[in-house]
This record gives sequence, C-alpha cells and structure tokens, in this order.
Amino acid sequence: MRGGEITAPAASSVEVAAMHRAIGLAACAAGRTSPNPLVGCVILGPTGDTVGEGFHRGAGHMHAEVEALAAAGVRARGATAVVTLEPCNHQGRTGPCAEALLAAGVSRVLYAVPDPNALASGGARRLRDAGVEVLGDVRRAEAERVNELWLTATRLARPCVTWKFGGSLDGRSAAPDGTSRWITGQEARADVHAVRAAHDAILVGSGTLHADDPHLGVRHGHGAPGGQQPLRVVLDRMGRIRRDARVLDEAAPTLVVVGEDTPRPELPERHEVLRAPVVDGALDLTAVTDALYARGLRSVLLEGGAGLAAGFAARGLLDRVVSYVAPLLLGAGAHPVLADFGVGTLADGLRLRLDEVTRLGEDVRLVLRARPLPGEGA
Amino acid sequence: MRGGEITAPAASSVEVAAMHRAIGLAACAAGRTSPNPLVGCVILGPTGDTVGEGFHRGAGHMHAEVEALAAAGVRARGATAVVTLEPCNHQGRTGPCAEALLAAGVSRVLYAVPDPNALASGGARRLRDAGVEVLGDVRRAEAERVNELWLTATRLARPCVTWKFGGSLDGRSAAPDGTSRWITGQEARADVHAVRAAHDAILVGSGTLHADDPHLGVRHGHGAPGGQQPLRVVLDRMGRIRRDARVLDEAAPTLVVVGEDTPRPELPERHEVLRAPVVDGALDLTAVTDALYARGLRSVLLEGGAGLAAGFAARGLLDRVVSYVAPLLLGAGAHPVLADFGVGTLADGLRLRLDEVTRLGEDVRLVLRARPLPGEGA
Repeated sequence: MRGGEITAPAASSVEVAAMHRAIGLAACAAGRTSPNPLVGCVILGPTGDTVGEGFHRGAGHMHAEVEALAAAGVRARGATAVVTLEPCNHQGRTGPCAEALLAAGVSRVLYAVPDPNALASGGARRLRDAGVEVLGDVRRAEAERVNELWLTATRLARPCVTWKFGGSLDGRSAAPDGTSRWITGQEARADVHAVRAAHDAILVGSGTLHADDPHLGVRHGHGAPGGQQPLRVVLDRMGRIRRDARVLDEAAPTLVVVGEDTPRPELPERHEVLRAPVVDGALDLTAVTDALYARGLRSVLLEGGAGLAAGFAARGLLDRVVSYVAPLLLGAGAHPVLADFGVGTLADGLRLRLDEVTRLGEDVRLVLRARPLPGEGA
Repeated sequence: MRGGEITAPAASSVEVAAMHRAIGLAACAAGRTSPNPLVGCVILGPTGDTVGEGFHRGAGHMHAEVEALAAAGVRARGATAVVTLEPCNHQGRTGPCAEALLAAGVSRVLYAVPDPNALASGGARRLRDAGVEVLGDVRRAEAERVNELWLTATRLARPCVTWKFGGSLDGRSAAPDGTSRWITGQEARADVHAVRAAHDAILVGSGTLHADDPHLGVRHGHGAPGGQQPLRVVLDRMGRIRRDARVLDEAAPTLVVVGEDTPRPELPERHEVLRAPVVDGALDLTAVTDALYARGLRSVLLEGGAGLAAGFAARGLLDRVVSYVAPLLLGAGAHPVLADFGVGTLADGLRLRLDEVTRLGEDVRLVLRARPLPGEGA
C-alpha cells in the first residue's frame, strides 16, 4: 500500500449480495449495449439498505452508476457504491462516472472487474486519490461471465466470435443427401433465437446462404427478449447473393461482405456492402472481424457452414462454441459439422472449456469457451 | 374383472415408498445376476412396517422374494409383498416364488414389471387364483430403468447391446495421425470402469484389437463395485490375435470369435474360441449375439471401432449408447467416431432417446436408448 491511500475493509455479506444483484441488473440489457459493456450498480446506505439501483441500457443512455446515483439522490452521501465494472474515468458521451461518484459524496466503492479499456480505465485510482475506500475483484468471476462477450472483445480488440451449430451425436449436420430438417428439436430451435438476441451480429458464409437461404432474424417471444435485431452479415466473396434472398428482407439490416476484387452488388435499400481483402482465394477473416469491430460490433454469432467455422478455427478466431447435440446417429457418409482446419495430431486440436450443460427437450446444449476467464483460474 | 378375483386396492404411499426401496435393493446386484434379472423385495407388516427385505444376488442364490420371506419369518403371515418383478411361477434351480409367497401366508402382492419371460410368467395369475390381492405396474417406469439391460435382452431374445464411445465435440475419436490419448479426462475414463462392471461382456473388433491392444478389464475401486470381471469378447474373423495380446492375460476369461472358415487359433488356457458364420466377408453379428445369448450373456458393451459400431447399427443391433463428449474440436481430417452404416437421408438415421446427461469434469456423458421403455410412454 502506498502512503496516503485509505485501507478498504473487505466486502461484507450485504455488499457481496449487492454485487450479485448488480450483476443481475447488468444482464438485463444483454445484447443491447454494444459497443458499451453491460454494467449494473447498487447504492447501499450506511445501514446496508439499498438506496439506488441502475444499469446501463446502451449507447446514449446513462451509465449504471449515474442512473443509480440519480435514484439515490441525497442518500448517496456517505453511501457505498457496488458496481460490476470499474467506474470509468473518461469523458465520453457522458461524463466520467468516477467524478459523478465523488460529486455525490460516496465514501466507499466496490467493483468486480477492472476496466480493460485503456481509454476508460483509471477510475479506481481517481477515487482512491480523492480519499474514497475502493475495493476491486468482488465476485469477479461471476461478473466476468455475464459480460463475457464485451470483455473478450475489448481484450482482443476484435469481436468475440461464437460458433453455434447443431449436429447428431456423431458430429454430423446433414444426411448424405443434404437433408437436415430437423436434426434438433423444437426447444433447441427456439433457444437459438435467445442466443441470437444476445449477439450484435449473425454471420454466415455463402455456402449456407445459397444452400439454405436462411433468414437469420430473431423471432421474439420464443425465449428471446424483445428489441432490436442483430446485424445480419453474409460473407459472399464473389458477390453472388440473389436480390430475393431472405436475408435481404426488411426485418433487419444486412451487411454483405465481398472481396475487394469483386464488383459491388446492388442491394435493396437499408442493406450495405463491405469490401474486404482476399487471401488465398478467400475473404481475409481477420480483416473482416477487424472491420466489424471498427463498426462497433462486439459479438458475432457464426451460424452454419462447416467450412466457415473451420476458417475461423484455423485463424484462432473462435472464442466460444454453442453446440446443440441431437440424439441421432448418421454415420460417416453424412456431412461433418466442422471441416478440416489443419489439425494433424491430438495436441493441435482446439481445446475448449465446458461452461454449461443444459438439456433442452431431447437435445443437449453445450456452451464452451476457448480460454479461461480471468478470475476463474487457469 | 373376472368373477372370483379379489379387487386389489390401489397402492398406498407407504407401499409406493417400499417399491422405491425394493428397486434400490434390486440395483445392488447390478452386473452380477445374468442370466437372471435384478429383483428386489420388501415385506410390509399389517401396520406398514418393514418386516423383511431381500434381493437376488445372482444365479444359484435365493430369489428376492424368498430372501425377504426368510427375513420376515412368521411376520409374513397376512403381510404385503412389494417386489420389482412379477413373482415367477416356474421350477428352476429354486422353487416358484408364487408358491413361496402363498406358503408364507402373504395376503397382498404388489409388483412393478410383468415378467416378460414366457417360462417364468403366470405368477400373478397363480396368486390371484389363490385369493391373494395382486396389483401390477406399481412404479413400473422406474423399475424398468434399473432392470433395463435384462428386460431388453429378454424381450429381444438376444443380449442388450450398448455402444460406448468417447469423442470430440465434432464427433472424432482420434486425430489424423491416430493420436487419441487422452481425448476425454480422468473422470470419464474412471467412469468407463463402472459402466463395464454393469455389463456381462465387453466386445471389440479386430481393428481396435490390433491398433490399441486394449485390456478391457474392470479396474475396481475406480467407481466400479468389486467383484467379477465381465467376459472379454474379441471379434477376430481371421484369427490373427497375438498370443501376447493384453486381452489374453489372466485378469478375466476372453472369448475370441473367428470365422467358421478360419482355423481355430491356439490360445492360452482359460480363454475360448467360438466359430461364427461369415456373411459378405464379415462375421455375422446376429449369429454372434445369438451365440452370446445362448451362453447366458444378457448385456454386451461395444467399445471402440467406428466400423464395428456401424456394423451393429446397420443390423439394428444397437440398443443403447453411452457417449463421452470431450470439449475439443479436431476437424474433418480426423477419424470419425462412427463409420457409414448406410444412412442416405435424415429419416434413415438412428434416432435415440436421451436418458441421462451428466457432467464428468470437463466432459459430458450422455446415455441414450434406441427404444422407449414400456411404461414411460411412446
């Protein structure tokens, strides 16, 4: 400890419970805050009673701390702020939260996750320097989990990429004749809409585009919260998309990515074309994800396409996997869920960590991650 | 209802609880009773107190009812017998249980599953004709589950065949260079020993035999109950097994099945050779399972061999699947867990029912069944 700093006593059980509540509040805006994080905040009065709550509802809305302070009013003086992410210290569309907490007279601040964003960090230091008790890493693993997509994106400076696929128990996505409806059951298919709704963009390759003519929209009310539609992204190097493709309807905007060597296809209004570099005859996926990040997208869901998923895996661009395993055997004559991505020996395989196992009707959903989350151990 | 029969009042909550207990007793001998079923029995006195319990410990031991009646002694007079399987009515190595119950003066009998064995059935009728209250189908689905291997075998007149495999999330059992140690983790590998211990025989094909030189023994104390070793069965049409194969050690007897056109290989003492018909250049799997049934085997665990499993699947000989899914992606260059078994279109796939989902460390174990159990609905 450096001279001049205040020693912050450990979190009490009331404060830990408040952090749990703040994490729940943060999750309320899942899928709607990009390029901003999910953040929740609870203000506790001197006797441990909650005097204000808030969460960040998305870009252009108040930060969680500011919303909670507004609810608390004068009761924030001498209070404890419990917040899921280190309060920001920069002037964005709204003022720095560290200053707002100081102005309100808060005397103690607990946060779960240090801000990984170089621009916004430093809030904890600013508060400590002003004499506030500050304690970090409170229920950090739990808070990392709820904000996983944004944290992964911010740390990697590219969108967090999740590959979603459904397949048979033996890893097949379609029978030899191409039939695949329905490998998974109704519950799993409904769940896909909730997974889509939590992402900023849904991405498919041209193979899936031409074979399945998917719509990629979120059907709300089927497990998905109401609200906006994710951006639909189609990788279509040769620009062969048909003007009557379902993905070009009016349900949501669509971004068609073509090779830089390809003439710009004419699309119905509201849709957009992005030209990207081509490497070895294919779109440069790293350049594509960089471009999506620059547009403010923090999470991308890959759907379908054994080749597309292999392309992302080969370039180290897969961060998460959501797999629906159906109770069915198809045999090796059927189409594999994942193409060859250059693995020669077992040690080269892509090892994941199992996050969740959920039974959905007769299917099983597995959620996995390519890396440990900070705070949960190696 | 026919004239002369006694109306049996519905099962009371005490009797239902006793059936639950009887099912638990039956399970105590799992893997040790073939060719006999698992059976448990509880005798309830007039006030609902338990006056005797028993379970069948295997061929040559007392039947469950007889063991429970022995424990009850004179208290069996006027008592209620709660038994997981319809009491037998035939003279085997022991006398018919229906007669034993009558001789003991039991006045009411509840059972869960009707005896599917034509030789032994008729016990319920015999008891009713003698004036005993008899009620069947009490907690039948639960009792079917604990006795699933024996019931399936008896109904099909061949052993219940379970395919056990471990693979990556994308359905691969080994990397392109053949490396496969260890795809699954320690908990899953330990669990395999418990699964083996519940089966009468462990079966591999010659491909796995020559590639992996497996031992196929049950390592007790690693989740497996102590006791005997399952029979090890090797399908080795050409009789090429090496005399120093690990499967020919002294840990357990091994049965080597060769083609009827193949000279009988010389094996170390305690092991055996069976010659089986050859169809289309391969051992006739139906003839093999028939021969195993005739030897008293009621459950066979298939281990390894994408081709062997496909052979059983193609002939409709797969009854159950135990799958260990590892959090790993290997891509389509790797070896598939299951070979082509003739599926052309989705409707031809082998649909299973999901029975259990269990997380084992970083892996997930799925247990599936090819058919519904009677009593659990279609």
